[in-house]
Amino acid sequence: MKQEFNNRIKNVQEAIIKQQADACIISSSVNLFYLCGYIVDGYLFIQPEGNPILFVKRPDGIEKENVIYIRKPEQIPDFLRQKNIRLPKKLFIENDVLSYSTVLRLQAAIGMPVLMNISGEMRRIRTIKSEYELAQTRECAQIHASIYTKIPQIYRPGMTDIEFQIEMEHEMRLAGSMGIFRAFGENMEIFMGSILAGDNAQAASPYDFALGGAGLTPLLPIGANGTPLASGTTFMVDMAGNFRPWMSDISRTFAIGKVPEIAHRAHQVSIDIHNAIISSAKAGTSCSEMYFLAEKMVSEANLDEYFMGTKQQAKFIGHGVGLEVNEPPVLTPRSKEVLEVGMVIAIEPKFVLPNIGPVGIENTYIVTENGLEKITVCEESLITLT
Amino acid sequence: MKQEFNNRIKNVQEAIIKQQADACIISSSVNLFYLCGYIVDGYLFIQPEGNPILFVKRPDGIEKENVIYIRKPEQIPDFLRQKNIRLPKKLFIENDVLSYSTVLRLQAAIGMPVLMNISGEMRRIRTIKSEYELAQTRECAQIHASIYTKIPQIYRPGMTDIEFQIEMEHEMRLAGSMGIFRAFGENMEIFMGSILAGDNAQAASPYDFALGGAGLTPLLPIGANGTPLASGTTFMVDMAGNFRPWMSDISRTFAIGKVPEIAHRAHQVSIDIHNAIISSAKAGTSCSEMYFLAEKMVSEANLDEYFMGTKQQAKFIGHGVGLEVNEPPVLTPRSKEVLEVGMVIAIEPKFVLPNIGPVGIENTYIVTENGLEKITVCEESLITLT
Repeated sequence: MKQEFNNRIKNVQEAIIKQQADACIISSSVNLFYLCGYIVDGYLFIQPEGNPILFVKRPDGIEKENVIYIRKPEQIPDFLRQKNIRLPKKLFIENDVLSYSTVLRLQAAIGMPVLMNISGEMRRIRTIKSEYELAQTRECAQIHASIYTKIPQIYRPGMTDIEFQIEMEHEMRLAGSMGIFRAFGENMEIFMGSILAGDNAQAASPYDFALGGAGLTPLLPIGANGTPLASGTTFMVDMAGNFRPWMSDISRTFAIGKVPEIAHRAHQVSIDIHNAIISSAKAGTSCSEMYFLAEKMVSEANLDEYFMGTKQQAKFIGHGVGLEVNEPPVLTPRSKEVLEVGMVIAIEPKFVLPNIGPVGIENTYIVTENGLEKITVCEESLITLT
Repeated sequence: MKQEFNNRIKNVQEAIIKQQADACIISSSVNLFYLCGYIVDGYLFIQPEGNPILFVKRPDGIEKENVIYIRKPEQIPDFLRQKNIRLPKKLFIENDVLSYSTVLRLQAAIGMPVLMNISGEMRRIRTIKSEYELAQTRECAQIHASIYTKIPQIYRPGMTDIEFQIEMEHEMRLAGSMGIFRAFGENMEIFMGSILAGDNAQAASPYDFALGGAGLTPLLPIGANGTPLASGTTFMVDMAGNFRPWMSDISRTFAIGKVPEIAHRAHQVSIDIHNAIISSAKAGTSCSEMYFLAEKMVSEANLDEYFMGTKQQAKFIGHGVGLEVNEPPVLTPRSKEVLEVGMVIAIEPKFVLPNIGPVGIENTYIVTENGLEKITVCEESLITLT
């Protein structure tokens, strides 16, 4: 594990050198965990070379080399001066994550350096997973898939979407779900995942997830809203896989009793898109190309108006997954990103059919030397529950 | 409800006028919900008088007066010019919540106004609850307390803290818990609440909650860590009450079998502190005074070294509760805040006893004309489970 952390720090140091910054301060939970292995209330100070210094306000009692206790960020320069470390004139910080107030205070505390934004670069660095991280992701996906195989037993006729979701949550927690899962971006809120049933899948949401749903409360307008799992409709299970810090993403769809033929047909198109991408994508494939391949297949099947929503249609069919559920790359028409070995991506071509519900599947894939490795292995067909 | 929203907007407008700003833009989930009743991806533009304008990027389909659809914040000035509204030169925004990048973009989009911070003022405005908000809080507290009465049935000998917590979560979700609950501040993360058993209560956490706990994973170092609920130890249940948007907070402590006398004694001191505060506190009471009253009673009982933790001791004994679980006022030695009618506060004098576990209780109170109204009514004594 020591080598693991050394490599991650080295990647940040390369960014510091490349962009000609003097130092970088990391203080967000996700990136502290990534670079230190744990979360503190504090600041990780990284210079172009050498070991980083971790300035900690809380918790008490970390006994490690390079851990310095402070009460407030204004004490950082005192320490640096003592050690004959020059105050940075150009400083990388996490502009996309830290609040404006926090950034201004930190900037003043460090002697008003020019600020540079490390947020995007940290997300890019995290995109390429190490063997250790990939092993964590595979373990997560395996537990995640095993829960999905229990869905026919968890379902009981007469349930609502939220009643079903609560039982899924319970199973997932018993299987080691860490509960909280993290998404990048302001206002990207969700609780453990989403169950979308029937026409609730058409409800537009303020959030930038693939599908919406009205939610149970205006305080969290996403996902299940109390819709009965009714005969002749479908429901989609898209619960987060957070059984390890490195996450997985799976969606599967279930039909209650007999559903119209179009549901089966559109569901198969989703599976076909996955298979077409698996056959063609490899390191070097552009993310927009995968999007256009999906779009073309949807058009040929004459299902455009149902693709990724109805009233509000998402303009992506997949995204990276890692410590956050929405990492780069994003599979959009305008993406300039290409697949690289070590990336983990979730692909989720979905349809929302009025008066029926959502259909389609989502899998998580690792980009390997040999193409895409599917790590979320469980039944993909539209399973009929009775 | 219309009057409710009018009053809230009026309070913001008074702040705009008092601080001589030209306008205020609100875009955080909590404050959008507070001022509009729902959450959007967008910007609520409030001028010193008149109806606010809601600029919405998502969701599609809101058909309301004063809702203007935009794709990006740069379109806001175009609309304002069309309507002959002068661009603000001094603009209130939520500096404590919005990211640095978001603020810079918004500032540039609006024509580089001088920025003023509305975050603290919004938190202060939300501190005083209306009759409607108090009714919501009471309903929440009642459901919350009813779940706590089930704890002796939920407990099974041989459980670990996390096994117990998972069953509590399940009961709470079935009773309408909205899952997600919000805390103010960077890195204030928690999942549905905390169960602290035995010596795990001594583990220091990076977060600014009353007590810590190691957590199950370094990715979320707070609360239950797999400690068995063992004979001779105590465990404290501090699960969030989010059955309504306006929340409640309750902690109760349980002893497994026979526990040392000091646990009973310290638990009683916590109850005595509550009663002493109830007898003396009213509108006008300073928050520091309540803290010092508690501190004095703890000293007289010779329990200082166990108060609010051992290795890391929290320097507050209570906090406001509302749409966020940690609102003003905070009951600290240095607080300058005083109780006002309409505030909702959670008081939580707690002890952590080495080799035994945590003891004490937390209740939520409404500050009324007649003093503190306890709204979290359920058994307070140290209940022995066998």
